[in-house]
Amino acid sequence: MTTLTNRMYRLRRRPTGEVTAEDLEWTDEPVAEITDGQALIRTHYLSVDPTNRVWMSDMRSYIPPVELDAVMRGAGVGQVVDSKREDLPVGAHVVGLTGWQDYCVADAANEDMPFTILPDPLPAPLPAFVGVLGHTGISAYLGVEFADPKPGETFFVSAAAGAVGSIAGQLAKRRGARVVGLAGGTEKCQYVVKQLGFDACVDRRADDWRSQLEIATPDGIDVDFENVGGAIMDQVLERLNIGARITLCGLISEYNDYGSDSGQPGLRNVSQLLMQRATLRGFIVFDHVDRYGEIIGQLAQEWAQGALHSEDTVVDGFENARDTLNRSIAGDYRGKVVVKLVD
Amino acid sequence: MTTLTNRMYRLRRRPTGEVTAEDLEWTDEPVAEITDGQALIRTHYLSVDPTNRVWMSDMRSYIPPVELDAVMRGAGVGQVVDSKREDLPVGAHVVGLTGWQDYCVADAANEDMPFTILPDPLPAPLPAFVGVLGHTGISAYLGVEFADPKPGETFFVSAAAGAVGSIAGQLAKRRGARVVGLAGGTEKCQYVVKQLGFDACVDRRADDWRSQLEIATPDGIDVDFENVGGAIMDQVLERLNIGARITLCGLISEYNDYGSDSGQPGLRNVSQLLMQRATLRGFIVFDHVDRYGEIIGQLAQEWAQGALHSEDTVVDGFENARDTLNRSIAGDYRGKVVVKLVD
Repeated sequence: MTTLTNRMYRLRRRPTGEVTAEDLEWTDEPVAEITDGQALIRTHYLSVDPTNRVWMSDMRSYIPPVELDAVMRGAGVGQVVDSKREDLPVGAHVVGLTGWQDYCVADAANEDMPFTILPDPLPAPLPAFVGVLGHTGISAYLGVEFADPKPGETFFVSAAAGAVGSIAGQLAKRRGARVVGLAGGTEKCQYVVKQLGFDACVDRRADDWRSQLEIATPDGIDVDFENVGGAIMDQVLERLNIGARITLCGLISEYNDYGSDSGQPGLRNVSQLLMQRATLRGFIVFDHVDRYGEIIGQLAQEWAQGALHSEDTVVDGFENARDTLNRSIAGDYRGKVVVKLVD
Repeated sequence: MTTLTNRMYRLRRRPTGEVTAEDLEWTDEPVAEITDGQALIRTHYLSVDPTNRVWMSDMRSYIPPVELDAVMRGAGVGQVVDSKREDLPVGAHVVGLTGWQDYCVADAANEDMPFTILPDPLPAPLPAFVGVLGHTGISAYLGVEFADPKPGETFFVSAAAGAVGSIAGQLAKRRGARVVGLAGGTEKCQYVVKQLGFDACVDRRADDWRSQLEIATPDGIDVDFENVGGAIMDQVLERLNIGARITLCGLISEYNDYGSDSGQPGLRNVSQLLMQRATLRGFIVFDHVDRYGEIIGQLAQEWAQGALHSEDTVVDGFENARDTLNRSIAGDYRGKVVVKLVD
């Protein structure tokens, strides 16, 4: 058998600010032969998630940091190309933690998070299984469920054009809430309103975004689906109604500060959580693996009926993955962002 | 009838930082005769609560700010001395919003929060009805209930020697939690451990308070009963366990910043709410008036049995009220702080 080459990113240094080539090294190595109890998975699409940046820092997080010199952790969808495991037959499409590499060895003896075999035939394109029918769709579903928006309430979601926000807003709209998003740029805001059906969208890149937020939420905010934190969340806190619920799904605006000497900037308006008697719940999708099946079933049905709009940004070329993560955190994309590794 | 003199504090200016004589003016005026539907209440003890400082600012709060030139809002216990109201007979002891004044006119036509008549004979000294058997005791009770500490869990409470914290810790201890307080100075810390029965107390005035906190919470923190916010809360967030609950009762460390140009300092470690999948609930005791009777009944029973230790700091002389509030926010006192207006 010809030796395969495994292109990969190894974490050489913990980044401060944006991820550089010195932090995350682009390299390649030969793929070793698999042994009993192992399968070899070819990554087709790498899932690029802002939270990847969290995993690179050694802050106290929801998951151990990626060890220095290790292959970067990451979710992906791919196909079993060689196998000495009955549960992972050759040809099967799978989703799981492939890492930032072409080939992943799935070792039964050493699996924190097992791979999931996708249905055959595939009911959706592969990227959907790390997007609307994967962990970002499930995050949206859970966050909306926790915050429980009621008909007539105002539901706000930041990063509204993103993988999680776009789905969360649509699910809240289905529950009868007035849904207001926030996204970067007029084009994205139009997408959020026209394609996703939100009632309004605040352009965070506009100088007057604060007054846009005020105008878009004349009755205040009952639910905040929080993806970004920082100055935007501070402004949202000023708009909370009494008894508001905040579902804390992400703090993207802070991630590039993790590992820097100054630490994360945090929030100033914490007082509004008290004054408005708000409830905030932080959650991590990985805690709810037991519900993945049920939730994906729901999302898949709505998606197949065309009732759930989702878009993927597919970036070609694995060599662009690092830059894609930086741009994803900067908010340069729309929908779920994946990097395509195969032709 | 001789005209009575009503000593009072009027809010002349919104303070920045500590409250000064220019902000809160000490003055007196004659008491007007009451008319039909009114009763005159003599304030015996004024309740001094850090949240009084919040009411002086015009920030977006849980209650409208005290209007400029109005008598300062405040809770107190007193006695009906004149009445043209059947529901408030002369001689009755009452608790309610007396304001910072000797005499309060209780007008049936204009009552946001009616006065409550206390039992006769009084089952406890008057100050208790703004303390352990009043709004601070009820705050402690509700906050513990919301956070629901379980046996073996670590329950942390800041301002542990204060009116709310001292009761909250004892209630959590009763539920089987390991209870750790934080208070200012060795004397207060000894009080918290020896008199109140907490398992440990961190001295926030010690240089090594951060390591004291770490040592006192070897298994992390499951419940944070938060009274102070700021740097202390930030440090507590670093100790949270997965699934921790935060009951947000107060943010005393911020109050003197309300109204200042720089605004409140807020929190840096908000990320830990996400990383540890924490739930935070802000609450205001006034929202739960419907439960006061039930809760006071519980607290009174435990208090009468000697199962609930409480101390009051009684400051003599109404002219000291403003200074007492400043010192209360600075953490100079132990237990419930009241100012005595009558001999």
